[in-house]
Amino acid sequence: MLEQELTERQLSSKEIFDGRILHVFEDTVSLPDGKSASREYLRHIGAVCIVPVLENGDVLVERQYRYPVAQVLTEIPAGKLDRRDEDHLLAAQRELREETGAVAGRWQSLGVFYPACAYSDEAIEMFLARDITFTAREPDEDEFLNVMRVPLDELYADVMAGRIPDAKTQIAVLKVYSILHHNTL
Amino acid sequence: MLEQELTERQLSSKEIFDGRILHVFEDTVSLPDGKSASREYLRHIGAVCIVPVLENGDVLVERQYRYPVAQVLTEIPAGKLDRRDEDHLLAAQRELREETGAVAGRWQSLGVFYPACAYSDEAIEMFLARDITFTAREPDEDEFLNVMRVPLDELYADVMAGRIPDAKTQIAVLKVYSILHHNTL
Repeated sequence: MLEQELTERQLSSKEIFDGRILHVFEDTVSLPDGKSASREYLRHIGAVCIVPVLENGDVLVERQYRYPVAQVLTEIPAGKLDRRDEDHLLAAQRELREETGAVAGRWQSLGVFYPACAYSDEAIEMFLARDITFTAREPDEDEFLNVMRVPLDELYADVMAGRIPDAKTQIAVLKVYSILHHNTL
Repeated sequence: MLEQELTERQLSSKEIFDGRILHVFEDTVSLPDGKSASREYLRHIGAVCIVPVLENGDVLVERQYRYPVAQVLTEIPAGKLDRRDEDHLLAAQRELREETGAVAGRWQSLGVFYPACAYSDEAIEMFLARDITFTAREPDEDEFLNVMRVPLDELYADVMAGRIPDAKTQIAVLKVYSILHHNTL
């Protein structure tokens, strides 16, 4: 099938839920064969995440309770954009400083990922942050998390062994390990 | 803060939307400081994805239109469980055969990831599949996709360069490349 023939076209769109975080839609689309189907999906403002690597090779990570999976998870710092057109680098610098108190002198984009392209338009841009100094943390009032330092090699081993289930942390740590250890970028 | 003190406790739960794919809930929880907050999230049945590596080092991937992001994406084969307690390996074998016609003689789990732990309980188990032979494809009636073969090295380079936004494909390809090239597992 030619690529342009795979496209689905919107016939109608209905807003199901307009929450604080989740914005749920149900659209009717025409399929490549002319039939119609429904598509349930989320619209998300977008987000950023950061791998902050210290001079000695340690990475700043957070331990935070995630209600949907009922577990405390190890994650790299991350946060939603304040608005859809916010500059991603500025958002990453804000989130890193607020959550960990870290300020980085050197930033590098690691690209974007879609966590769930089948049912969400969320895109998360990943950053590598280096040349780090510290200022005061400013966590959001309802954000409870512990900041820890873990050697990059140990974090990579944890990801490879399946001990870090968070998607953004897996992708960004694997990329940073590849960049710093194999000079692939 | 002690880890057990990070936990949030459910005070009440409300079903917002019971769709075909999306099941949306809004709960009220008590926070570590005793205040209460709302948590919007999805319940998902769970899924599997597969990196099928052929004898010559090619990987079977799919090109499929993803309506939420309005793009044709390159993805490894994947699919939802048929039921929450379905055996993940059997589900992976079924999805691989239906979507690509491939049957693998050697399977290895690559661990699990949570695509969006902040607002979804979805868990995706990843598999590496080898010793592949082919039978007939049986795609779902409303599933339109093209199957392609891409060398693992090229797929890895595409992921590192940010040309493959799909999360499951990024994680699983980075893991398989690490396993096959650096013998890290």
